[in-house]
Amino acid sequence: MEPVLFYGVPHGCSFGSIVALEWLGQPYRLHRIDMMAKRSGTFAKVNPLGQTPAMITSDGGTLTESLAILHNIAARGLDKGLGFVQGSKEFDQLNWTLSYLHTSLHSDLGYGWNAFKLDDSDTLGRDMLRKMAREKAAKDYAFLQGVLDNSEWLAGDSKTVADAYFIGIARWGEDLGLFDIAKEFPGIHRHMAKLEADPAVIFAHAIEDEAPATSSGGFLGHSTLQDLDVRLAA
Amino acid sequence: MEPVLFYGVPHGCSFGSIVALEWLGQPYRLHRIDMMAKRSGTFAKVNPLGQTPAMITSDGGTLTESLAILHNIAARGLDKGLGFVQGSKEFDQLNWTLSYLHTSLHSDLGYGWNAFKLDDSDTLGRDMLRKMAREKAAKDYAFLQGVLDNSEWLAGDSKTVADAYFIGIARWGEDLGLFDIAKEFPGIHRHMAKLEADPAVIFAHAIEDEAPATSSGGFLGHSTLQDLDVRLAA
Ligand SMILES: N[C@@H](CCC(=O)N[C@@H](CS)C(=O)NCC(=O)O)C(=O)O
Ligand SMILES: N[C@@H](CCC(=O)N[C@@H](CS)C(=O)NCC(=O)O)C(=O)O
Repeated sequence: MEPVLFYGVPHGCSFGSIVALEWLGQPYRLHRIDMMAKRSGTFAKVNPLGQTPAMITSDGGTLTESLAILHNIAARGLDKGLGFVQGSKEFDQLNWTLSYLHTSLHSDLGYGWNAFKLDDSDTLGRDMLRKMAREKAAKDYAFLQGVLDNSEWLAGDSKTVADAYFIGIARWGEDLGLFDIAKEFPGIHRHMAKLEADPAVIFAHAIEDEAPATSSGGFLGHSTLQDLDVRLAA
Repeated sequence: MEPVLFYGVPHGCSFGSIVALEWLGQPYRLHRIDMMAKRSGTFAKVNPLGQTPAMITSDGGTLTESLAILHNIAARGLDKGLGFVQGSKEFDQLNWTLSYLHTSLHSDLGYGWNAFKLDDSDTLGRDMLRKMAREKAAKDYAFLQGVLDNSEWLAGDSKTVADAYFIGIARWGEDLGLFDIAKEFPGIHRHMAKLEADPAVIFAHAIEDEAPATSSGGFLGHSTLQDLDVRLAA
């Protein structure tokens, strides 16, 4: 059966998994998780950690962690160039990129998100975490910009799941009010703008915004909680 | 030519890559990086970010990021069960585990390491970061302990690169003085103790400690800076 991706709003890192699924072009469904609301018991069965993205795979198993989901999609999209054959030099390069995006950019901007979890009154703590996020993520944006100076795409000669993941998280620097990306990192801005024009990215934004969304891939619609309960019981 | 792994001391996360290379059983060399000292120009060529682990691969290219290096080793060790065939269910599970270990345990304990980068006088900041590290990593240890309750190894039926990575970073909770793992997470302690008895782990400790080290794999010795300069110029 077609996989179901649980994506989080607002502005979750699941965005990249939606884009990658569109690029893959195979049938899939989505299920929306409002990260600000209480999460359902159904979702707890899929991810006891309560995080998005999460996936019910085609064989009915569950899979979480962006990198694992993106590797799963890449493995199914080798013919489309979304990923590369295990053991190849390009496989190494894609793994480098995915890992760097997560363990640097995602983690470092995480200091900024964590600032919001502190008490409003803890301005010192908030300022410190925001300062750390800015200092650390500035290095990451700069390094990635260097990669993009030498290559049109983040890993290899055409778009891969790494570009999909990138477009979901690169925006956080501005969401957090820490960076003016166009001004500070024009090379990052250029890559973001190129991806923003991609039909899969336009689709993922429409999905996040609950606007009319036109799939250029295999999107079959949203699964209801009832659908999911049936699938998980199977 | 045989790959060279650049490992960092003290107690670096490269430890896991040494263990995985030993398990692989194919020829390799090591090069030691003292993370407290100034790093060489040679190392800057291998990793401009100055981080360990880093690798010169068999074809003379460079590769950084633990997860990418571990995927590289896993791909060469499919016959030994160190990794799994791309596209399989087990491949998904290993990717989940590697990703979770890094994006949760490694990242969350990172808040504790970052506390040491603050001014000595900033006790408030230090305490806050240490408290965050403890709260976040406690959830990670607990979740991983749940995984180990149901399985002898972290991913699949026998040891994989995920167990190698685990044994390099799980100790940080104690290094940071944040946890008494044996008391708080006996299941984690049990898995650590099992791995500590493995010849590859004993070897990696001896390497870190500059004690006499007996390889049960394909260790050919340390590369000097001169060796490396020759290789990198080729
Ligand atoms: N390590 C996970 C982290 C995912 C993550 O941080 N998800 C966020 C949304 S972008 C989330 O679910 N946050 C809610 C929470 O942690 O409770 C991954 O890489 O997928
Ligand atoms: N994202 C990198 C991070 C590696 C990392 O944090 N390395 C530490 C040693 S455990 C390091 O090199 N720290 C020194 C530095 O960041 O300058 C990876 O997963 O390999």
